[in-house]
Parts: sequence; structure tokens; C-alpha cells
Amino acid sequence: MTKTRKSIISDMGRSSATRVEVRGLDLCEQILGRVNLGDMAFLELMGRLPSSAESTVFNAILATLVEHGLTPHAIAARLVYLGAPESLQAAVAAGLCGMGTVFAGGAEGVAKLLQENMPENVSAPLEPIAKEIVRDFMTRKAIVPGLGHPVHKPHDPRTVRLFEIAGENGLRGRHVRLMELIGLEAERAYGKTLPINATGAIGAISCELDLPWQIARGIAVIGRAIGLVGHLLEEIRQPIAREIWERAEEEAHGATKAS
Amino acid sequence: MTKTRKSIISDMGRSSATRVEVRGLDLCEQILGRVNLGDMAFLELMGRLPSSAESTVFNAILATLVEHGLTPHAIAARLVYLGAPESLQAAVAAGLCGMGTVFAGGAEGVAKLLQENMPENVSAPLEPIAKEIVRDFMTRKAIVPGLGHPVHKPHDPRTVRLFEIAGENGLRGRHVRLMELIGLEAERAYGKTLPINATGAIGAISCELDLPWQIARGIAVIGRAIGLVGHLLEEIRQPIAREIWERAEEEAHGATKAS
Amino acid sequence: MTKTRKSIISDMGRSSATRVEVRGLDLCEQILGRVNLGDMAFLELMGRLPSSAESTVFNAILATLVEHGLTPHAIAARLVYLGAPESLQAAVAAGLCGMGTVFAGGAEGVAKLLQENMPENVSAPLEPIAKEIVRDFMTRKAIVPGLGHPVHKPHDPRTVRLFEIAGENGLRGRHVRLMELIGLEAERAYGKTLPINATGAIGAISCELDLPWQIARGIAVIGRAIGLVGHLLEEIRQPIAREIWERAEEEAHGATKAS
Amino acid sequence: MTKTRKSIISDMGRSSATRVEVRGLDLCEQILGRVNLGDMAFLELMGRLPSSAESTVFNAILATLVEHGLTPHAIAARLVYLGAPESLQAAVAAGLCGMGTVFAGGAEGVAKLLQENMPENVSAPLEPIAKEIVRDFMTRKAIVPGLGHPVHKPHDPRTVRLFEIAGENGLRGRHVRLMELIGLEAERAYGKTLPINATGAIGAISCELDLPWQIARGIAVIGRAIGLVGHLLEEIRQPIAREIWERAEEEAHGATKAS
Repeated sequence: MTKTRKSIISDMGRSSATRVEVRGLDLCEQILGRVNLGDMAFLELMGRLPSSAESTVFNAILATLVEHGLTPHAIAARLVYLGAPESLQAAVAAGLCGMGTVFAGGAEGVAKLLQENMPENVSAPLEPIAKEIVRDFMTRKAIVPGLGHPVHKPHDPRTVRLFEIAGENGLRGRHVRLMELIGLEAERAYGKTLPINATGAIGAISCELDLPWQIARGIAVIGRAIGLVGHLLEEIRQPIAREIWERAEEEAHGATKAS
Repeated sequence: MTKTRKSIISDMGRSSATRVEVRGLDLCEQILGRVNLGDMAFLELMGRLPSSAESTVFNAILATLVEHGLTPHAIAARLVYLGAPESLQAAVAAGLCGMGTVFAGGAEGVAKLLQENMPENVSAPLEPIAKEIVRDFMTRKAIVPGLGHPVHKPHDPRTVRLFEIAGENGLRGRHVRLMELIGLEAERAYGKTLPINATGAIGAISCELDLPWQIARGIAVIGRAIGLVGHLLEEIRQPIAREIWERAEEEAHGATKAS
Repeated sequence: MTKTRKSIISDMGRSSATRVEVRGLDLCEQILGRVNLGDMAFLELMGRLPSSAESTVFNAILATLVEHGLTPHAIAARLVYLGAPESLQAAVAAGLCGMGTVFAGGAEGVAKLLQENMPENVSAPLEPIAKEIVRDFMTRKAIVPGLGHPVHKPHDPRTVRLFEIAGENGLRGRHVRLMELIGLEAERAYGKTLPINATGAIGAISCELDLPWQIARGIAVIGRAIGLVGHLLEEIRQPIAREIWERAEEEAHGATKAS
Repeated sequence: MTKTRKSIISDMGRSSATRVEVRGLDLCEQILGRVNLGDMAFLELMGRLPSSAESTVFNAILATLVEHGLTPHAIAARLVYLGAPESLQAAVAAGLCGMGTVFAGGAEGVAKLLQENMPENVSAPLEPIAKEIVRDFMTRKAIVPGLGHPVHKPHDPRTVRLFEIAGENGLRGRHVRLMELIGLEAERAYGKTLPINATGAIGAISCELDLPWQIARGIAVIGRAIGLVGHLLEEIRQPIAREIWERAEEEAHGATKAS
């Protein structure tokens, strides 16, 4: 039995002797010198350049994701660099490996929730949907994604600003509204302050930009890759990985070493 | 014997309840809505926002690095995604792992070469330095980094455009000049067409932007992380990894399977 | 508010000037020259050396996991090696990244299913439990893990042999029995041949060895790490990654390149 | 111009409905229940099962590599697991990424040094070669690989034991001898105690086993993959990654957070 061959097709980019094309645009003529990196990422994902409004909003959510201080991923990347300084790319890769459900899955969860629950009828009221979503999470004793923050209270300043920017650019639509209603309903139902965190804001705005939820984690990966390169440059100049390692090792094994 | 403790210091970012700071700037007030992703990367690496000229040039070199078609890294990322679709971050990481000496080390090599050979005296002639560099590589039978391309001949159109953009923005300085002289000298010495490729251009322009050579590979990693997310989104919508795998497996093992 | 510090404790290994200890054993005196690598892995995971019976069974399941031909992970590792031959470790890492839910999550799913459904009462009948499990998967239209194979029919020869070895060594207990009953019930309910595959066998036997299900994926990772190093050595001697890449790229982009 | 197609060939393993083959052996009949994991790794790398002597020696060097306490790689793997507990494989991968020149390149360097300097004439004296090697490293101000250890002085107990095991099994040949002579000559030339460390012993013994130096790093990767799975199981039961992270973050950013 012979299996039918499928074709191998990719339309991301191609090149000839004198021309390089990315998503149908001429790299040299239409992109270089004109398109910033955030817009380039938009082109790469969406197959077209963003409008000016989309550009402002998309660059803002990406910029939010770049630098979050000395995160577990940043420390992991630095420790890997300590062992393999000739492979900076592998240190970034190691850090990215940690962007799973706990720290980066949030925006994916938010975007999925909003996209799957958004009614097709654009004038259908959203309040009952928000109530139903929160009730469902409470019943399952699951945590509503995109809400709450250990440090930023009562508001996450990034959310306030991102929604403001979305509004100024005509992109504060029904997905943002549904997220806000979920937040209000959750605060009422749980009886505590539950601000929409940056992850929730980014998830909601990604939906306004028509990004499919499956790629929401990819947006976080793009931002954090930049941040990890930044941390590795700081590690080159002002190393801390060895100290973090030696302290941990000494505390864990110290007694024997002293013997 | 007690070892002296070093401090653990990191100045990349920090946050309080109401404020998030990245490299000393207020994220919400000074960055979001104002700074594009390329400028954010510049801030993260250099500790300050770029000038308008630097912004144009830096975004151009990053944009060049995003999409290079169906590279080995892109295929590797797609194959990893096939096995672990719940871990998009790990698929990007796997692709990045392949950005080593063969495909991404070039810009690093170029930047190192130019930075180590640039005389402090800014009026010292560069021709003899270029001659000396090429002679040294020929003696060692090593390949001069940043020259030659299998497809783009007689010029790499990206190099032409990137040097043009650098020139328009006052950043076509002595590092670019030295790279050009090395190219000319290599063509003369080897007796064949050796255009400065995009890697050579990016390495040289990185030097004009004062980026340390140790981080040149990181610039490539940033661009390619975006490209890999793009390829994974295409893989989600129009999968090819399984076909690539099955064809290879069938050719390698076919005879036995048929038995 | 000061947070209470937790201690950093690790009991895996420690060393002094004259002694190296692994899980409480003296490496030089009690391990080297006496303990094979599978038993070493058992020690590392379980904190004690295996009995002779456990050793035979544990080494058998690990040996099963080493080599599965030209898998997507093996191709991914080879493609990454093509770009970064100086970082063999990163190529292995890239391949491992693909051992997620699709290819390696199976044993984890099986072990979790068996451990969570095994009654504490060791004389409780298992048939009703197997029926209930299969009914539950059918209701949820989910796939029962550990059953079925595209090539190995009507039996997976590895399962037959692994259960035989487990039996010869007194480790074919109630977890294996429950897996067999699930297989029989599933064949009855779905009306088709559904052999217990190697993943199902390994998941069940892992339970007999008291391995927690959370580490079942780790067993697969151990085996496959060996296999990936093997594939990279073959790639060094008899390279195929470039050919796989070039064929895919040519098919995807060929038209333009020819132009 | 049409390029000639190369064949895609892989001889690692293959399977039919009733048979699984690994390096030419029948997995079920000739391997399972008979071959331990170390011998399986030997088969995978060398294409044949080891002799009893080779098995003892090869398992000993692999066992040496499994567990080295709370290394930077182990901490990195734990930090990555903290962020992505659903992807244990990616945490192991992240740890492996750090096995580069600093911590794992040593055995590769030793094996390359010994293989490249070993004279074909098996009765040629080795002392002058050792002298020449040490002189060369001193001239280049480079560090001779495989010598010295921060904790194990005046001898690395693992080296003593590994060479003993090699001797008992007829595998303490001229590569081990050359390594010993290099160590003696280096101690004389540098005027300080420079014991052959475990890396040096493993590199030398790998040569006695006819392993090509290009795969020496792979041997370390195999051992450490097991160790990393062990550390992740300990992390699941007795977590420390969050504490390591929080302490580092607090020290680096504490002042601002308190404000």
C-alpha cells in the first residue's frame, strides 16, 4: 500500500540571487529602514504589516514582555551560560524552556477563554457570559487566568496603561470588555481584590489583534528571548551565576564538605 | 576557611506595587505606547534608548535576521512541536539550539575581527589592516567570516541596502569601511567574487552601534526567535513536519517495513 | 514583613577531598566496577540499589526506550547538530524537547491511570475497574493510553517480552494485570484489535517497580538521551541532516530559486 | 543545474510488525532481559555489544558521570521545571544545554589530545610525547585538560578507582599511560600537585574503549541526563528552586520592593 505524498509547502520567505522575500514583501525595498522589529513580528505572524494603530498596540504588548527582573528563567539561562559560554544560543534556549504553564501559559489561557466564549453576535450582552465563566471556574475550583498579582495591587499599572493604549488606538473592543467583566465578577464572587494582571491584559489585547490563542505563548517567547539576551550580556559584564550556584551548593552540601 | 560572599546584583528591571522599571525607565510612562520592540531590545542591551538614527539602523539589522525560509532550525522546531505541541516554547528553544558556529556564529566572528583589529587612532589607514587580516586567514587556510553567499551573487542585496541605511543615518563608519576593504582584498587575493553577505553587514553595523562582539550572536537569536514563532504558527495551520519525518524514515527504513 | 527562609537541601550526592557519595553510597567503593548504568539510574531515582529481579526488569524497560529509528526527535537533533556541531549537548537537548505528550507522554499517562485507579485492598477485583476506566474514556471520546500500534499487530512483541521478563522476576503484579484487563475491555468495547504497546507495558511495569507516575516521562528521557547520542555519532560519520533540509527547502521554495 | 540526490540512510534501528531491531540485534530476543543499560549504550554507539571486560569498564565511567551534587545544570533544570512542570523533558534539556566547554568539554579535550598524539607505532616511547604536550600548553598559556581538582587532593579518588578497574579488565593501555605521563610532567613543570581528575580518567579510558573523541561529550550527556532526572524527582518531592530564585531576586531587587 503506497501512501499518498503530501506536498511540503512553506510561504514564510524565499530568496533568489537578487531578491529576498518575507511574507510576500521585498525585504530590501519594503521592509529594511521602514519596519520596526515589532511590526516585523506582526508581519511574520499575520502575513501583513500592521496599521499604525495595530503597530502601537502590538509593540506595547511585546515591550511589556521583555524584562521582568531576575526571574527563574533568567537565572537558569545564566547558569547554563556559566557552563557553556561558547553557546549563548543554548543559554537563551534553556531559559525559554521554562516558559510553560506556570509563568507564560497565562496569556494563552486568557486568549483561549475569551476566544472560545465570545459570541458571534456582536451585540449579545457579555455580562451573563462573564458570570457563567466565573461560576464554571469556581465549580471546578480552578483559577481564573489573568487575574491577581502578588505585588501589583490594587491595580496592575501595566494593565491600566495597556488598556489605555488599546483604547486610544480603537482596539479596546469586546474581548477587553469581556476580560474586565470577568475581573469584576470574580472580585464579587471571591470577595477579594483581583486586578487584571499584565498577562490578562496581553491575552485580551492579543484577541483584539486577531491573534489566534495558540500563538499567545509565542508572543511571550518573543519578548522574553530579548530579555534573556539582555540578562546574558549583564552576566558577561557582572556575573552572578557562580555565586548563586556556590551558595546553593554550599548550603545543601556544606556539612560534608567541611568534614 | 570562609569564602567571601559576593553580592547578587542585577540592574535589568525591578518593580514595586505601582511601578515597573526597565533599565531605569518607567515601563508604563516612558516605554509603553512610545517604544517599538527593536528600540526596547536596544534599551535592554545598551541601557539607554537609541537615537532616531540608531533606531532605524538597529531595527533594520534585526528585521534582516527574522526570516530565512525553511532553515534547518525551522524544520527542527517544527519536528519538536510535532512531539510536544503543548510546549511551543520548547520547540522555539530547540530551533535556537542550532544557531551555533555554522549558521549564526558568523556575525560574532565578524564583529570580533573588526573590534579586535580596529586601531585606536581614528585616522590610521585601514587598507594595510585589511591586507594583513586576509593574509593571516589565507596562511591559516581559514575562511574569512562575512564573505560569500551560495545564492546572492555578485552582491547580497541585503548588504547593499543595510550599508545604505547605515550611511543615511550617519552610522557607516570605520568598521563598515574595514569590512569593505577586507572584502575587496579577499576578492583580489582569492581571485573570485566574494560579496559581503548579510552576516558580514550585520557584524560590521553592530560594531558601529557599539555592541560588544560577545552579544552579536544574541542579536541573531532575537531575530530568529521571532522567525521560529512564525514558522510554528504556519506549522499549526499547514503542517509539514510529519511529512518530512515520514519521508526520511521511509527512505531510511523502508525495505524492512515492507517485509 | 519578613518571609521565613526555607532551607536549601539536596541529598543526591556530595563529596569531600577523599570520598564521593551518591545517594548515601560510596561511589568508588560501592558503585564503580559493581553497578551497571541501569542500576545506577535506579539508585539515583529510588535512593537504593535494585534487587537482582528489579535490576533485570528496570534495565529491560530502559533498553526498550533507547532506539526507535529515525524519529522526529532524532531528525531534529541531527538538524540542530548541523548548525552547532560544537554543541553536541544542545543537539541532544533539542531532541529531548520533542518528547512531549505525543510521543513520550504515553507512559506517564498509563502510570498515572494505573496508580490512581489501583484499589488499596489488594484482593479487590480489577475487572470492574477496567470496565469503568474504558467506559469513562469512551464517554469522554478520549484515547486510552498504552493501547494500539500502527506497525506492531496483533501484538507488540516488546510488550510480550517485557511482561514475560516481569513475570520471571516476580514483578508481573496487579498493575500489569489491570493494564491487561483494560486492553481486553477496550478491544471488546471498541470492537477492534488494540494490543498493549511498549508504552503501555513500560507504564505498567514502572508501577510494579514503585516508580511514581510523575517520573515516568523521565524514564523515557533517560533512554532516549542515549539514543540521540547514538544518532549524532551516526550523523558525524554518515550525515543526512543537510540532505533532509535541502530537499525540504527545495520543495518549499524551489520555484523561486529556479527563477 | 540539478543537484544529485544523496540517499537518506540510517542503520540505528528498524522495525516490522513482529520484530524490532537495534544495531542489527533483535531487541526482544537478544537484548531485553539480557543487556543492561550501559551495554545498551555501548551497542548504540559502537554497533556491537561489549565484552565482559569492556562492559565493566564502560559502565564504570558512565556511573561516574551520573551524579555530581547540586551543579549549575541541576539548579537550572530545577528552575526550568518550576516554570514548566508539565514539560519534564524540557527541564532536562535545559540542564544539558549547560554541559559545554566549562564543565563537560574536558573529557572531549582529553580524548582528542590523546588520540591525536598517540603514535601509530605501539612501542614508541610516550615520555617525550608527554613532555612535548605539556611544553606546548605552557607556551600557549593554555590549561592542560584533565588535570587538577578544587576538592579532590592530592588524588581524585575516582581516577584511582577507574584506572584500577581498567587495569583489572585489561584496558589500562597506552592512552591511560600517556595521560599519567602528562600528569607527572605537568606536576614537574608547573611545580604543583595536579592530580588526574575524573574527567581526565574518563577521557583516557574512552580512548582505550576505542570511542572517537567527538563523542566523548556524548558520554557525559548520557550520564548527566540520568542525574538530571534524579534531581527533578527530588525537586518534585522536596522543592528548592523557588527558594533559590526568591533569595536571588530579593537580594538583587530587594530595596525597591520594600519601598
